[in-house]
Amino acid sequence: MATIEKDEVLARIVRLQQLMAAEQVDAFLVTQHVDLFYITGSMQAGYAFIPASGTPVFYVRRSLERAELESAVRVETMPSLRGFKVQLEQDHPAMFAGGRNEAAVRIATEMDVLPAASYVRLVDVFGSGCALVDGSSLMRQVRMVKSPWEVSRIEAAAQVVAEALVEATTIIREGITELELMARIEYEIRIRGHIGLMRTRTYNMEITTGMVGAGEAVAVPSAFDGPAGGLGLGPSFPQSTSRKVIKRGEPILIDIGCCIDGYVIDQTRTAVIGGLPDDLAEAYAKAEELIHAAEAAMRPGIACDSLYTDALAGAAAAGLADHFMGYGINQVKFLGHGIGLEVDEWPVLAKGFNTLLAPGMVLAVEPKFTFPGRGVVGIENSYLVTDTGCRQLTRSPEGLIVIP
Amino acid sequence: MATIEKDEVLARIVRLQQLMAAEQVDAFLVTQHVDLFYITGSMQAGYAFIPASGTPVFYVRRSLERAELESAVRVETMPSLRGFKVQLEQDHPAMFAGGRNEAAVRIATEMDVLPAASYVRLVDVFGSGCALVDGSSLMRQVRMVKSPWEVSRIEAAAQVVAEALVEATTIIREGITELELMARIEYEIRIRGHIGLMRTRTYNMEITTGMVGAGEAVAVPSAFDGPAGGLGLGPSFPQSTSRKVIKRGEPILIDIGCCIDGYVIDQTRTAVIGGLPDDLAEAYAKAEELIHAAEAAMRPGIACDSLYTDALAGAAAAGLADHFMGYGINQVKFLGHGIGLEVDEWPVLAKGFNTLLAPGMVLAVEPKFTFPGRGVVGIENSYLVTDTGCRQLTRSPEGLIVIP
Repeated sequence: MATIEKDEVLARIVRLQQLMAAEQVDAFLVTQHVDLFYITGSMQAGYAFIPASGTPVFYVRRSLERAELESAVRVETMPSLRGFKVQLEQDHPAMFAGGRNEAAVRIATEMDVLPAASYVRLVDVFGSGCALVDGSSLMRQVRMVKSPWEVSRIEAAAQVVAEALVEATTIIREGITELELMARIEYEIRIRGHIGLMRTRTYNMEITTGMVGAGEAVAVPSAFDGPAGGLGLGPSFPQSTSRKVIKRGEPILIDIGCCIDGYVIDQTRTAVIGGLPDDLAEAYAKAEELIHAAEAAMRPGIACDSLYTDALAGAAAAGLADHFMGYGINQVKFLGHGIGLEVDEWPVLAKGFNTLLAPGMVLAVEPKFTFPGRGVVGIENSYLVTDTGCRQLTRSPEGLIVIP
Repeated sequence: MATIEKDEVLARIVRLQQLMAAEQVDAFLVTQHVDLFYITGSMQAGYAFIPASGTPVFYVRRSLERAELESAVRVETMPSLRGFKVQLEQDHPAMFAGGRNEAAVRIATEMDVLPAASYVRLVDVFGSGCALVDGSSLMRQVRMVKSPWEVSRIEAAAQVVAEALVEATTIIREGITELELMARIEYEIRIRGHIGLMRTRTYNMEITTGMVGAGEAVAVPSAFDGPAGGLGLGPSFPQSTSRKVIKRGEPILIDIGCCIDGYVIDQTRTAVIGGLPDDLAEAYAKAEELIHAAEAAMRPGIACDSLYTDALAGAAAAGLADHFMGYGINQVKFLGHGIGLEVDEWPVLAKGFNTLLAPGMVLAVEPKFTFPGRGVVGIENSYLVTDTGCRQLTRSPEGLIVIP
């Protein structure tokens, strides 16, 4: 299993500290397990305290032994929450001694994921001399740009998904259910080292290993913030794969990911038994055209939202505006999203998201067309933004997968 | 797929309203998808507003169509957050018109899971006339007592796990890896309708489908709040199954669950190729003895913590106190936990948890003994508390599984 170099972790901390300085943040209290893994190299339970300058410490509840083996930053035992405050005051006397113009000490934390009850408790413990501020965007900005090592892990995941797709395609035939196809894909990725879950950051957002389905079942609206939510297994899991039987001539959307060494990949291919009706085949060809246009456009300095608006214009020019990224009121307003340790990372190729692409960003780009009652066609690749353009990370061949 | 009767959902709301009245809560704002499913029958995206008396409404962002099909309570379109407040004031004029002695309107929400940023935004939108209070314990108390329909779903999950164990046991032999065994179990549960994930409520807590592993790999300490965390697949997933090769004579812990129609089951069996060393075989027998003692003790009116302290005393009497529920400083201080829509429900059979058992509670009871460097042995069954005692829901035969 791949381990992170200590220097890489320390470089991440330096980048976080630079952003903190720009926002007059005195320290970052890292609480979420994925962020802890990113910023220390270890996912043991505790809090990491990253001062704007000075020595970061990972305060660990359990397991201390494993944290000491894994963490690139100093590990100490996590005291009680009250004791933790006392400890921080001792370790950072300048910070907590009414330092900067007697203003409150500004401590950032991940308010996008930290539960409200924990937040309220921290506000109480840190007291009126400290202001807890939302550091979510700082953390997401740092994580947005991947290192070569991180990209290598995403590529490892891409390889696993490509192999799983080859294996799973062999069982597609009239009469199997979406669930049977999904179960086989999941088996193939799991046996190759998928950690068994896909991490998401957004409240209430769940992803198993993606969305595999056929025909009308994929085209139903859903709560899922994506172009094809799926029918699901009932009200208790009203998205993704259902028990629908796959039929000849309907599009089979195979939108799958996996997580290797913590890093996810996201890829979609469209398959069909026999052939697609002409209009769906044309829509599929348009999706490939749009992804190739995005490929040609992606390079440092390009605004994320322009990639979305260009694709939307391309869909509209083909008379497919109503079908693009969902249908009607259920359309989503994006073309792609960052991936990394989580599936819903920054940047987002969406209206109003005017971040400029930069080298190291990794994006899943997924033009899709929804036809209510009939299905969804489309393609999704993941790309690394390079110094001069982009490089595709997903490895499955493009083109409609046609099963005789 | 099983659907919930509308009357059952309405009865849940009445029970929540009774607890709300006792706590002087004017309304419950339900935000988490699992709680929304419980309290409306639908898991679409939005907020449910449950007044202490009056008509509950599920305000839905998406998908409105599906919410209208699924929800037992009235569905309306979710406006913007500011518009939402205006809407609530219109719908509940008495509540928001400086009603009860001009005190703030007390609105409960699930502060144990709602992200801090969302909480802060709600506090701002609701304004100084409203107090957002933590309703987590109210929701957890209502969900703690299951209906016959809910129990039937847990039993359906129990049946799936039992079948998967039979299938998976056929591949156990010297030389296969933990991951190969886990992948097969997951395939067997998935094909039978497992939704593809196990929901947890605790911040940073993750469960794939349990903990399957052998020998020393299971006995390592971990961040996981359970008696056997496991080695895992590396620092990015430092718990559960690893790639360790299973050897003759070491205990294989098969602690697995699945989720059917939203409800989980939790079961552990211990297997071995050949036979266990005498001391581990004795510890396994002691675990069975402790679970049977708990079975005999569980009935309405018994305090949760007494079940834990009795089991601990039983372990100590056998000279196994240091090995009980983890080893040394990594021991966890509980014997079991509630299960239902999530794996970490109430009540908990733990020190200080003095809730009295009541009919309808469902508990996973899991006495286990950890031997560092050698493995973990134990057993886990899930039980329904009945009017007069308890009824086992897990279906796999007890006893050590011995593979020749």
